Amino acid sequence: MRIVLLTAALVLLFPSHFRAAQLSDATGECLDCHGNIASGMVAAWRHSRHAKTSPQEAMKKTKLERRISASTVPKALAQNNVGCAECHTLNPEKHSDTFEHNGYQVHIVVTPEDCVTCHPVERKNYGKNLMSHAYGNLVNNTLYQDLVRTINGVQVFDAGQMELQNPSPETNADSCLSCHGTRIGVKGFETRETVIGEEMEFPVLSGWPNVGVGRINPDGSKGSCTSCHTSHRFSIEMARKPHTCSQCHKGPDVPIYKIYQVSKHGNIYASIGHKWNFEEVPWTVGKDFTAPTCAACHVSLVVTEEGDVVAERTHQMNNRLPWRIFGLIYSHAHPRSPDTSVIRNRAGLPLPTDLGGDPASNYLIDNQEQQTRRKTLQQVCLSCHTSQWVDGHWARFENTIKTTNEMTASTTKLILKAWEEEAAKGLAANDSIFNEAIEKKWAEQWLFFANSTRMSSAMLGTDYAVFDNGRWYMAKNIQEIYDWLKMMLAVGGEISPVAKPNKQ
Amino acid sequence: MRIVLLTAALVLLFPSHFRAAQLSDATGECLDCHGNIASGMVAAWRHSRHAKTSPQEAMKKTKLERRISASTVPKALAQNNVGCAECHTLNPEKHSDTFEHNGYQVHIVVTPEDCVTCHPVERKNYGKNLMSHAYGNLVNNTLYQDLVRTINGVQVFDAGQMELQNPSPETNADSCLSCHGTRIGVKGFETRETVIGEEMEFPVLSGWPNVGVGRINPDGSKGSCTSCHTSHRFSIEMARKPHTCSQCHKGPDVPIYKIYQVSKHGNIYASIGHKWNFEEVPWTVGKDFTAPTCAACHVSLVVTEEGDVVAERTHQMNNRLPWRIFGLIYSHAHPRSPDTSVIRNRAGLPLPTDLGGDPASNYLIDNQEQQTRRKTLQQVCLSCHTSQWVDGHWARFENTIKTTNEMTASTTKLILKAWEEEAAKGLAANDSIFNEAIEKKWAEQWLFFANSTRMSSAMLGTDYAVFDNGRWYMAKNIQEIYDWLKMMLAVGGEISPVAKPNKQ
Amino acid sequence: MRIVLLTAALVLLFPSHFRAAQLSDATGECLDCHGNIASGMVAAWRHSRHAKTSPQEAMKKTKLERRISASTVPKALAQNNVGCAECHTLNPEKHSDTFEHNGYQVHIVVTPEDCVTCHPVERKNYGKNLMSHAYGNLVNNTLYQDLVRTINGVQVFDAGQMELQNPSPETNADSCLSCHGTRIGVKGFETRETVIGEEMEFPVLSGWPNVGVGRINPDGSKGSCTSCHTSHRFSIEMARKPHTCSQCHKGPDVPIYKIYQVSKHGNIYASIGHKWNFEEVPWTVGKDFTAPTCAACHVSLVVTEEGDVVAERTHQMNNRLPWRIFGLIYSHAHPRSPDTSVIRNRAGLPLPTDLGGDPASNYLIDNQEQQTRRKTLQQVCLSCHTSQWVDGHWARFENTIKTTNEMTASTTKLILKAWEEEAAKGLAANDSIFNEAIEKKWAEQWLFFANSTRMSSAMLGTDYAVFDNGRWYMAKNIQEIYDWLKMMLAVGGEISPVAKPNKQ
Repeated sequence: MRIVLLTAALVLLFPSHFRAAQLSDATGECLDCHGNIASGMVAAWRHSRHAKTSPQEAMKKTKLERRISASTVPKALAQNNVGCAECHTLNPEKHSDTFEHNGYQVHIVVTPEDCVTCHPVERKNYGKNLMSHAYGNLVNNTLYQDLVRTINGVQVFDAGQMELQNPSPETNADSCLSCHGTRIGVKGFETRETVIGEEMEFPVLSGWPNVGVGRINPDGSKGSCTSCHTSHRFSIEMARKPHTCSQCHKGPDVPIYKIYQVSKHGNIYASIGHKWNFEEVPWTVGKDFTAPTCAACHVSLVVTEEGDVVAERTHQMNNRLPWRIFGLIYSHAHPRSPDTSVIRNRAGLPLPTDLGGDPASNYLIDNQEQQTRRKTLQQVCLSCHTSQWVDGHWARFENTIKTTNEMTASTTKLILKAWEEEAAKGLAANDSIFNEAIEKKWAEQWLFFANSTRMSSAMLGTDYAVFDNGRWYMAKNIQEIYDWLKMMLAVGGEISPVAKPNKQ
Repeated sequence: MRIVLLTAALVLLFPSHFRAAQLSDATGECLDCHGNIASGMVAAWRHSRHAKTSPQEAMKKTKLERRISASTVPKALAQNNVGCAECHTLNPEKHSDTFEHNGYQVHIVVTPEDCVTCHPVERKNYGKNLMSHAYGNLVNNTLYQDLVRTINGVQVFDAGQMELQNPSPETNADSCLSCHGTRIGVKGFETRETVIGEEMEFPVLSGWPNVGVGRINPDGSKGSCTSCHTSHRFSIEMARKPHTCSQCHKGPDVPIYKIYQVSKHGNIYASIGHKWNFEEVPWTVGKDFTAPTCAACHVSLVVTEEGDVVAERTHQMNNRLPWRIFGLIYSHAHPRSPDTSVIRNRAGLPLPTDLGGDPASNYLIDNQEQQTRRKTLQQVCLSCHTSQWVDGHWARFENTIKTTNEMTASTTKLILKAWEEEAAKGLAANDSIFNEAIEKKWAEQWLFFANSTRMSSAMLGTDYAVFDNGRWYMAKNIQEIYDWLKMMLAVGGEISPVAKPNKQ
Repeated sequence: MRIVLLTAALVLLFPSHFRAAQLSDATGECLDCHGNIASGMVAAWRHSRHAKTSPQEAMKKTKLERRISASTVPKALAQNNVGCAECHTLNPEKHSDTFEHNGYQVHIVVTPEDCVTCHPVERKNYGKNLMSHAYGNLVNNTLYQDLVRTINGVQVFDAGQMELQNPSPETNADSCLSCHGTRIGVKGFETRETVIGEEMEFPVLSGWPNVGVGRINPDGSKGSCTSCHTSHRFSIEMARKPHTCSQCHKGPDVPIYKIYQVSKHGNIYASIGHKWNFEEVPWTVGKDFTAPTCAACHVSLVVTEEGDVVAERTHQMNNRLPWRIFGLIYSHAHPRSPDTSVIRNRAGLPLPTDLGGDPASNYLIDNQEQQTRRKTLQQVCLSCHTSQWVDGHWARFENTIKTTNEMTASTTKLILKAWEEEAAKGLAANDSIFNEAIEKKWAEQWLFFANSTRMSSAMLGTDYAVFDNGRWYMAKNIQEIYDWLKMMLAVGGEISPVAKPNKQ
């Protein structure tokens, strides 16, 4: 009833928003059938700004208010609101998933190369974002591919030995690639009886469904705008709310959302965020919102009530980040290229640091660029905090980067000792460095604990870094590895075959 | 103030909802005292539909709109709104907790056999739901009772040995039975001085309080409608929101809520669910809500905007579920009977599969019934997704059922080896299979990790299944068990007494 | 748009709330510059009651409705709304962080000794709250300082040995002291070029920023009201919502928020709390809210719809708590003094119990005081539940206190055995009792698992205590410690140097 009342009131006050949409004939044809097939999809779109606005109208807004970054849009598209056909029939020749459908050349997977028509700046920026390369950064890095294999592969126990099978594409798609993005292929075409009773031909996709951030699309482009701008509503409110980021950033490897929740910022959002305006562009600090969500610090165009720009909109994101604090063995300056698979450390491994922690500096941004990015992010802090506050916070954060790296270095020394003493098999033995129990504990030290501690410090969710998955576990884990190593060496160090000694 | 405004507006627009309630004289008498004793309870009820509607009015609605499934209700009950007396004085002869109270035969515990008066279809369906048998499914299964004992019992260390004490009823009620349901007994009657100064006699209940889903009630019935339809507001909004399910489905054994949270569905709910209508019956996809909550897929009557039924309301729930994916050693076809304590595998154990994974097929639904249930659930998916999308998702999910079962089989082989080598004591030694550290690690492999991985796949919260409590831990846990077994056998395998060898 | 509508409507209905603020000239001067420097801070304050009300107006309310507890406020402060200058220029002579700023004696850190001007009762009560002593209770307890050191210090592996370095002040401030509170010092003064282009002198603070509950302030006072009453909005809505408590009470050591979430209370809050009124004083059960948040049970002035007081407002909090159930080795009666660093057990250790569990009764409240506090808290329960319900719940809770203490006692026996057998180094060896892996497992037994089990029982979030971080882990952890001890003794018990035996 409340919604009824509000809607009624809104219609009276803002009639223009509820006028009949200007839809293209093509979109009208789509809706004739799809209005009642998977109708929830269409309903979501009807709630979208796309359904209610044409590019032409969108371009009339002032620079700061614009949500569209194109200076020109092809005339055929500009005058109609953005419907099914506007996106799903763009660039048919580029899409290997294009098929003839009721007289239209339709493709299933809408990609950044489609969205670029109206949003070229965002598409270009996102291309510099590590996320757009998330598929290759995992799949083209031999060490990371081995990590994937040891996580996703079925392990078999046979004749006293463990054997690791390669994971199937289905398993990888259901695991790492769910967030990193799959490679969407077209396996062929098949004719199916449809709901409306007619037989029709459709492309058969592999790697589908997927909305991972680095998805390889049927037109060869990378990424999926709908990872964050959830189809088919494409709501800016959703993209600005932390739940969107949490889809991929909540586990112990990247517990950003959990950390945000225990921060003062997260508390303010959870407690009084329902009073904020998540729809306005630009986004005014103090007026539209009074504590940052992920988007405020990392993405959005933020302005003050006086209209001064606090931060320019970015879909590159790392241009506000001096450090890379998760995902790798050590925290280090951000990589220069979003394609991190090209990085090699001194030992020739595809890692941004040595195993001891020294950075592969040629592949990383320099101090000056770090300082530029630090200042850019700090401008957001300074919109609510004093400079002394901000400096104090950053001093702690960068101290924590240092001490967590030191703890990882100590733990790595233990694992090197284990390999040296043949208590485990490592690089020298041409064995995976992630397959044995003790190696997995080592991986947790940086991938989970050092990582979480740094992120908690960065985002002021310090409670998480004490006992939740931070310092306590770092301190305990290294002692457990030390304990294990002592025990292994005490019993001789080589005890592989599972059978009692006296039975051998 | 906002609430004041909205209420004022609502009164103007919907006066009928705010007219004086038609309450029975008996309920009026209840309220005379209880309006100020535990008054929050009464206040909750005043907000309920029960307080504002009579069965007679409720039955006037169209079939799809009805929240009441009885075709007739006893005349004495039909004309009044549903107040205290209507429920708490029903069927006094069946209730062992009935007592004389101010001239009325009142019982404390309202049960499904009371609710059946107006909601017979729901009560009947719920009887086919495994949850209604949750008490017996735990307590009447010898293996599961042993699991309970090893979790809840106090362990004592004495003379170098660990001893396990039986848990008290209070402990069990505070642990497993909190969700599964207690058995509510009447220990006797006692006279107490009441708040209003008078002495009165009341039944003394054991197992109280409890709102577990399989509660054994004083009238012999099973279950508690208030598990989900929280007393005394009985809000459909609450039952449809995922927080209700999360009361029992959040821990590592059944992390459904956590998985939902990292799914796209959960993200949409968290971000824009505040705009949805959780009160409407039937529930219209696209109009009332634009992403499913637990209820949408598993329980609710869902229709399209054109009024087509997507899914019939069910309180059986498993009629939309082809697979049972949690709680047991292996995932398997759903049991035929909601009373799973009758199941025996080939070895005579009360388990739906062998220890190796082969299903006890006689007790499980067949392929055809699985297909029927799969199609029923997929209809809900298809209300927002294309058939290719749905098929792709299900192929991954069923692949994940297979691979997680394989990982459990490997781990079980390791534990069988440990028993065989007498590194631990298992079935052959007539010992608990859950009491030793290594057995607990084995139990975590299926109860936590395989389980979580499957559920994450089912509900598209794949981030959870990578590092949160899924594949990473499955892969690590099996290696740790293997490591332990190697170590145990290296030192001889029998090292029970806690004392240095040279001190023996 | 919705916010626009509501605001418009509210202005019409409640114009007095939107009239021009009566601000002091001093505050006016602050705003002249700071309106556009860190403007989010000012914007938050503009939303506050402080910005809209003067103490004089606040004192006109009835006793129950008053949010101000002073009977008189200095005239100079009483007539103006509470702005920047009113707080930041109070008691300049007491503040070591006072500095001359544009003709005013300004201090950075507003403290309880400033807030006391209008809120003397709250400040006095909070002084009896353990939280106000949270800094000293950690830092002045030698055992707890050792725990801090073993968590926060960098560990170095060198020459086969682990060495523990002392954590830096930055690390401690970024970890434990983030919640417990730092000691804020003034390191000196420095001149900085400011945003407005002028050079100005500012104090340079150590331990800043921090809003920990036991912060030691530059005026020597303890605590930070803004821990819960987040600056600069000081919203009672926020303080009453559980997210505020969750900032420090969410990790495995104090998972109160997580437990609340899986309780029926937390479910009701999450599902329908958006309909409640979090602003009203007093807070009326049934009308303003229909299930408790943390504040309702532990802090707030709660009344019935008839205006009867259910619970008086308290910032002491422990006057509603008979038991202390977390943070220490055993649960025990609450300490008499909020300064717990004075406590000594029979062995002279700064602990409220012996290692075996016997309470240091001289330092703890007696049975009678426990009963008084139990009854005080139960009054809140009774505002929605019957006495039988409440008694049943408390019987389980106090049984759980007993059994979790028993499990801790068993685990402590194992660790004492390990020390005795020299499998680990403990008190007798003058070694830390928290530094070795096995000792950390012992600490988890009480600090995480016993603790979580008790809190889950107390707050009816029992699902958490089964598998989430409760009984399952208690049962498993003790078996793992037992397993380890057996293994250690089997291999001889002294295996410190990390090298193969045959290499020594």
